[in-house]
Amino acid sequence: MRRLPTVSDVAEAARVSRQTVSNVLNTPEIVRPETRERVEVAIRRLGYRPHASARRLRTRVSATIGVRLDPGTDGMSGALLDRFLHSLVEQADAAGLRVLLYTAADEDAEIRTVERLLDGADVDAFVLTSTHYGDRRIPWLIEHDVRFVTFGRPWGEHDMTDRSHRWVDVDGNAGLREATTSLLARGLRRIAFLGWPEGSGTGDDRRAGWRAAMTEAGTAPEVLDELDLGVEEDPHDLGVGGSAVAELAPAGVVCASDSLALAARLALGPDVPVIGYDDTPVARALGFASVAQPLEGVAQAVLELLRSDEGPHHRLLAPALVER
Amino acid sequence: MRRLPTVSDVAEAARVSRQTVSNVLNTPEIVRPETRERVEVAIRRLGYRPHASARRLRTRVSATIGVRLDPGTDGMSGALLDRFLHSLVEQADAAGLRVLLYTAADEDAEIRTVERLLDGADVDAFVLTSTHYGDRRIPWLIEHDVRFVTFGRPWGEHDMTDRSHRWVDVDGNAGLREATTSLLARGLRRIAFLGWPEGSGTGDDRRAGWRAAMTEAGTAPEVLDELDLGVEEDPHDLGVGGSAVAELAPAGVVCASDSLALAARLALGPDVPVIGYDDTPVARALGFASVAQPLEGVAQAVLELLRSDEGPHHRLLAPALVER
Repeated sequence: MRRLPTVSDVAEAARVSRQTVSNVLNTPEIVRPETRERVEVAIRRLGYRPHASARRLRTRVSATIGVRLDPGTDGMSGALLDRFLHSLVEQADAAGLRVLLYTAADEDAEIRTVERLLDGADVDAFVLTSTHYGDRRIPWLIEHDVRFVTFGRPWGEHDMTDRSHRWVDVDGNAGLREATTSLLARGLRRIAFLGWPEGSGTGDDRRAGWRAAMTEAGTAPEVLDELDLGVEEDPHDLGVGGSAVAELAPAGVVCASDSLALAARLALGPDVPVIGYDDTPVARALGFASVAQPLEGVAQAVLELLRSDEGPHHRLLAPALVER
Repeated sequence: MRRLPTVSDVAEAARVSRQTVSNVLNTPEIVRPETRERVEVAIRRLGYRPHASARRLRTRVSATIGVRLDPGTDGMSGALLDRFLHSLVEQADAAGLRVLLYTAADEDAEIRTVERLLDGADVDAFVLTSTHYGDRRIPWLIEHDVRFVTFGRPWGEHDMTDRSHRWVDVDGNAGLREATTSLLARGLRRIAFLGWPEGSGTGDDRRAGWRAAMTEAGTAPEVLDELDLGVEEDPHDLGVGGSAVAELAPAGVVCASDSLALAARLALGPDVPVIGYDDTPVARALGFASVAQPLEGVAQAVLELLRSDEGPHHRLLAPALVER
């Protein structure tokens, strides 16, 4: 990665904040003239080339959003991101925005592709659909003043409130709370949680929702520990999750995904209530309840954050329990 | 739709074939000078504006393919087109081509969108992923000399061999033949077919493959008629397909889709062999065999046809039975 001058370099040279540099580039009218002058001098001296990303997104006739198509995730919930993409394209289209897809072999290749798309003025802003701890794309985009939004919170990073990192996510904690509460309301008490091993931000968020509802209902911590299952999913073998939950003989099960719910359903039979997550066609086909992500709302929020300068830069949307 | 001059108008005015007009626009060097002159005169006189689609695709630095994102099909096989899109983007990327997604409320809106994308030189060629009888987009694209390829044969149209309509499809007939033969080879005879009602090009193609294999094995026509099930799928209720096939008490079932196979599996239990189609994550999760569409091969063939002038304009690829 060639070392081009970045927003931070300009900020340091002009003795201002990174946000001020971004303002000079995108909304110069709100910056004091002396400050603006100082920043512009630093820009010229360092040879900084702004992508003017946010401004182009607002003003170009056919502004284009770049979306990375992640390697096909092969599970039943892999289709979730494709459904999000459908919503995004529909709404972008309605807003006069284009959606360009790209892919890359690895992070470094992706950064080069992003650079190429920006340099060629092919893309004005980016939407990322999966991030991970230590994701180098995020700091690169921030450093180069490129407008982007991620679908998914930056788990484990310090910048969950950083205004440079716009994100939209769905409140899995609330989703599992609602699912668990729906079973408690029916008089069930021995409700198990079937999820992934601890360490997944998304998974632990959902686990916490189940735990909160069960604790409020008076369940003892040692019982919770017994009812808390974390399994490594194997798309070729539903056995693992299924046998683990069958051993517990629960009154009901809430799950971190529909594929886990399918395993539970097949192991326990149709008389034990099972609630999945993602509301995939399998939940519909087999007739079990599931927590649905509000993908249209996510797409809408993503587009709004892409084009906003002021206001919140993070949105947490509530999922909805689809009962069956 | 405004009535602009089309390739047909030019062909008529210059007294040549449509293909000759297309050659003058895209590969003028292969046309005789007198003929070329005549066509060029007609072009100027009529005010025909060529999109130079195929040539731009070959020569532009960042040539772009437009793909219509169909309204999310909500079934388990709806993800098939998303998986095709993944392959397409990966391979297009490797070939230096961009993929731009668009959507539209209806056919007329789509034609307007296509026109806009072409006029703005945003897209050089198109990939369509579902067509139907009387699809107006196809003749529009042909008339305006826009390069396109469809994933899917133009069932019911006269132009299945028309060189203006490039298509790539998967041989469902061969897929069901192979699935049925695999069960016959195990000594099974009473093999049912679970598909959709007659009238679907894709469905009837698959039905014909089962029928051919069963006929070759000596099954009487009246028995075939009894074993031939066509049901309207309801994503919310697997009951219909399931109970119909249970009534037959078959030795095995081959199906037109994995969702039908799921219905059969749930109705018959794991001891009756069931073979699905599309090899979705559900086939893997429940452990039944399925016919897999060669989506990477399809994507590759689509890209080749997009950029080819000579050679076949239609490709039929063989699926592969994934045994479980």
